Amino acid sequence: MTQPAAETKPKFRNPSPTVDIIIEIGERIVLIERKNPPPGWALPGGFVDYGESFEDAARREAQEETGLAVHLVRQLHTYSHPERDARQHTASTVFIATASGMPVAADDAQKAQLFNLTELPALAFDHALILADYVRYKKTGQLPTYSS
Amino acid sequence: MTQPAAETKPKFRNPSPTVDIIIEIGERIVLIERKNPPPGWALPGGFVDYGESFEDAARREAQEETGLAVHLVRQLHTYSHPERDARQHTASTVFIATASGMPVAADDAQKAQLFNLTELPALAFDHALILADYVRYKKTGQLPTYSS
Repeated sequence: MTQPAAETKPKFRNPSPTVDIIIEIGERIVLIERKNPPPGWALPGGFVDYGESFEDAARREAQEETGLAVHLVRQLHTYSHPERDARQHTASTVFIATASGMPVAADDAQKAQLFNLTELPALAFDHALILADYVRYKKTGQLPTYSS
Repeated sequence: MTQPAAETKPKFRNPSPTVDIIIEIGERIVLIERKNPPPGWALPGGFVDYGESFEDAARREAQEETGLAVHLVRQLHTYSHPERDARQHTASTVFIATASGMPVAADDAQKAQLFNLTELPALAFDHALILADYVRYKKTGQLPTYSS
């Protein structure tokens, strides 16, 4: 290419892609307590860098925020409602992953802790909706579909 | 909010999110012949606008390029390899949808045509990979997973 892709000017503004990771350790999942606003518990995750695949971003963010080297299993769904993050329009592709060991909070996380699916805390963003879809998937094997 | 989300300045450059739509009409799917580079056949799709959900973007792009009012069924997967589009880093969330009637090309499409899954033409971008995942899903009910 005569012009590197990284210098191509986007034609218009897009939602910003992010990834969130549901990290399974045994029967529990890892949540982080956010260091930055909005406060509260959330799935580990963050923005995807230009030039980075979403899979690499998911592994990187999981490592940065929980110290865990995760094994990606599958994508759950991509959540893109314009109001899901009050700060700006983000769209999150959510991955299911597995890991072993214990999470250690770092980076944007001030705590990282294991939770049973029946005892989830209040969650930031649309992460309660995401985990409701995940719980249904674990029970039924069915990923989100659209009705009507 | 004191500051509208649309005026928030992004902290750094991200991949641009796009949607592509696999439109089923009976046993066949709709492909378009692209008017703009890169040439060739492709799934209908395009960039997501800021403030637009991916679902709305999928319905809009399907309508614009094929004239069809589609019914979304589910997401297939999100494809984000940095080299999937030589022009810039895009990530495509691919939807499966149904429609009735016949496609009529418009907007970025110079042709829109129905194809049997066993007689697909050469495809632009990573759309052959996407349709291989789709064909496997139709045969086995299994969506893409990660191995190793």
